[in-house]
Amino acid sequence: MLALYFDEQPQIKEVDRPVPGEGEVLVRVRLAGICGTDLEVLKGYHDFKGIMGHEFTGEVAGPENSPWLGRRVVGEINIVCGACDLCRRGLSRHCRQRRVLGLRDHDGALAHYLTLPAANLHAVPPEVPDVWAVFIEPLAAALRVQETAPVSPEFRVLVVGDGRLGLLISWVLALSGAEVHLAGHHPEHLALARPRGVATFLTPDLPPGDYDMVVEASGSPAGLDLALARVRPRGTVVMKSTYVGRYPLDPAALVVPEVRLVGSRCGPFAAALRLLRDGRIDPRPLIDRTFPLSRGLEALAWAQSPGVLKVLVDCREDG
Amino acid sequence: MLALYFDEQPQIKEVDRPVPGEGEVLVRVRLAGICGTDLEVLKGYHDFKGIMGHEFTGEVAGPENSPWLGRRVVGEINIVCGACDLCRRGLSRHCRQRRVLGLRDHDGALAHYLTLPAANLHAVPPEVPDVWAVFIEPLAAALRVQETAPVSPEFRVLVVGDGRLGLLISWVLALSGAEVHLAGHHPEHLALARPRGVATFLTPDLPPGDYDMVVEASGSPAGLDLALARVRPRGTVVMKSTYVGRYPLDPAALVVPEVRLVGSRCGPFAAALRLLRDGRIDPRPLIDRTFPLSRGLEALAWAQSPGVLKVLVDCREDG
Repeated sequence: MLALYFDEQPQIKEVDRPVPGEGEVLVRVRLAGICGTDLEVLKGYHDFKGIMGHEFTGEVAGPENSPWLGRRVVGEINIVCGACDLCRRGLSRHCRQRRVLGLRDHDGALAHYLTLPAANLHAVPPEVPDVWAVFIEPLAAALRVQETAPVSPEFRVLVVGDGRLGLLISWVLALSGAEVHLAGHHPEHLALARPRGVATFLTPDLPPGDYDMVVEASGSPAGLDLALARVRPRGTVVMKSTYVGRYPLDPAALVVPEVRLVGSRCGPFAAALRLLRDGRIDPRPLIDRTFPLSRGLEALAWAQSPGVLKVLVDCREDG
Repeated sequence: MLALYFDEQPQIKEVDRPVPGEGEVLVRVRLAGICGTDLEVLKGYHDFKGIMGHEFTGEVAGPENSPWLGRRVVGEINIVCGACDLCRRGLSRHCRQRRVLGLRDHDGALAHYLTLPAANLHAVPPEVPDVWAVFIEPLAAALRVQETAPVSPEFRVLVVGDGRLGLLISWVLALSGAEVHLAGHHPEHLALARPRGVATFLTPDLPPGDYDMVVEASGSPAGLDLALARVRPRGTVVMKSTYVGRYPLDPAALVVPEVRLVGSRCGPFAAALRLLRDGRIDPRPLIDRTFPLSRGLEALAWAQSPGVLKVLVDCREDG
């Protein structure tokens, strides 16, 4: 089968179709997305070597006796042991033996086929087309903000960063009833948030005032500077993005105003599927371009261009 | 009256006795403590100018018609407006017009007399001697850890730093039933925690394993390094200490394990008084030396020596 493979360099190559292990299924990938973390892999993140990609939707193609056979699915990306102390304490997304689809010790989704434990699967409702379902992983990550720290409907919330993830976060937070502001540098991206009830600002034009919660989704030190400057005493800064390098943190900026700075990663797939099924979130405006898998290297290059939104890859064998 | 006054340099000098304003009382100071933050004032913290000190116990000496007259008291250090948006939202310790006893825009406790709003006072029960009551402010700050983040009795908690505050924090956390470890560099300090049910370790000898919560009370970048290295996924690092300078934070160290890093400052006086009254905390082993106010400069110099615990100042006019 064809795959977008990373080994110091990304390459499109023919590899053996994977064979599902005990408890696993084989998924024929229909559509996959390219995420910021995939671009970090290109820079050496996790020293990953293998098939890239972790955002996907597809249909189960094996084993023959699987109750999932033929069903349209999405899949959680963390492959966990279920036995370590963290798994037993309900922290399985942080399993000590964790492997991650396309990111750590498990081949990914930018291929004709992938394998995943059946326990990772969620059925895609018929109302949700593939181009929506492929957004399930970033939409779940956006919903994780509200699991990380409660968002009161009375809050003023600032989202910093108008990329794919920042936009999704601003959309889902606006559904909570909170007053949501989005700050970014791309007028054409900000325009996608305004119809969803989000007040948008070019970052230099952000009006004065502080926020109960700030979500840092820009992945830049300047974004974290802004977040810490604008969060109120005892407020929360949720960090959704990471980047290579260190942030020069002023300890007094946390201790004196008793601010909390909280990391936030993968989120709840089931809730994300409900929002898609009920039409609360329509991710299609986030799609920038779709490439066939055979042109995966072009897709990666395009995703790295400044200001590009979601790049999708059609992974069907005739795609 | 005599006072330990700071204006670019600390000095012992005669100043006018303060006159309590509307809603304020005059307190005759009996005993005051020197805190790490006072030592930061010497380095220019808050650009403070005035009488130093914020840890004290004393008795109310005026005005004549005050219902507090003659009562032995301690006092909360934040002087707040009661009218700004933060005060109205129950965040008055973060009042936007906040003044702080001996730290910001209000003369402090290292003097024969101080003034404070009557609303800041707590009566000291007769069972609590002055040498206990003078620890109320740091003991309340230690209790603030449990307000900052819930401490389950099933938690393993690490306290980093075996100074005055680190010891107090380890003692109060041990009362919660949690398994508390204290890491520091002073065997003679660690010995003060062991009889209180705290397991103690010289920092290089800390055994492997992670913690549900880590409290950083060392005020050093190495302490925060250790805290972030040892907190479990989705665990909490409570920052109690600050220092001049920046900490080089790795954003991935928060985002990937979804760790929360939370600042924590002033705490509940009433709860601290209950623990003292009931004999749950006996702070006397923390006392290093007591100086009379007239030798306040020596007291400051002594407090700056490495490994010194609490330095007290007897502020009675004949003290």
